[in-house]
Amino acid sequence: MNPVFIDSIGLAAGALTTVAFLPQVIKVWRTRSARDLSLGMYFTFTLGVALWLIYGILLHAWPIILANAVTLLLAGAILALKLYEGTG
Amino acid sequence: MNPVFIDSIGLAAGALTTVAFLPQVIKVWRTRSARDLSLGMYFTFTLGVALWLIYGILLHAWPIILANAVTLLLAGAILALKLYEGTG
Repeated sequence: MNPVFIDSIGLAAGALTTVAFLPQVIKVWRTRSARDLSLGMYFTFTLGVALWLIYGILLHAWPIILANAVTLLLAGAILALKLYEGTG
Repeated sequence: MNPVFIDSIGLAAGALTTVAFLPQVIKVWRTRSARDLSLGMYFTFTLGVALWLIYGILLHAWPIILANAVTLLLAGAILALKLYEGTG
């Protein structure tokens, strides 16, 4: 299959799974409440995204690299807010 | 680089970013509260994971396929619980 088409699917996927975390960052920032968010989820997820980034670098797969670099920042921000708010 | 090593990194990454959603599913299920979770995040994320699954299938990249199939189920479960609880 056309590699440009495959890259486009990966880019759209990465854009969505990356942008997805922005409303969550904004919501926690505005409400100052993160009680319903799982600390275990954000700890494990942030670590996993770091490994996806390494995987993308090793494969030279730029949609994976780009998407996970930004997701790492956003998920890391939520993790930091969760730890800072300390609401269980 | 050794493709088995690269696959292992992808498998570990996929395991972490997949398993990560399990404590969140359990937390929302137990507390029956999803108020702090962003509906926009889970709607967008679930759609994006579906596209990652298609991307993995097109690339024949089994770590991407496996990870995203399970993540789709877990993120979809959180989305369903968020909609069902209807707590804003």
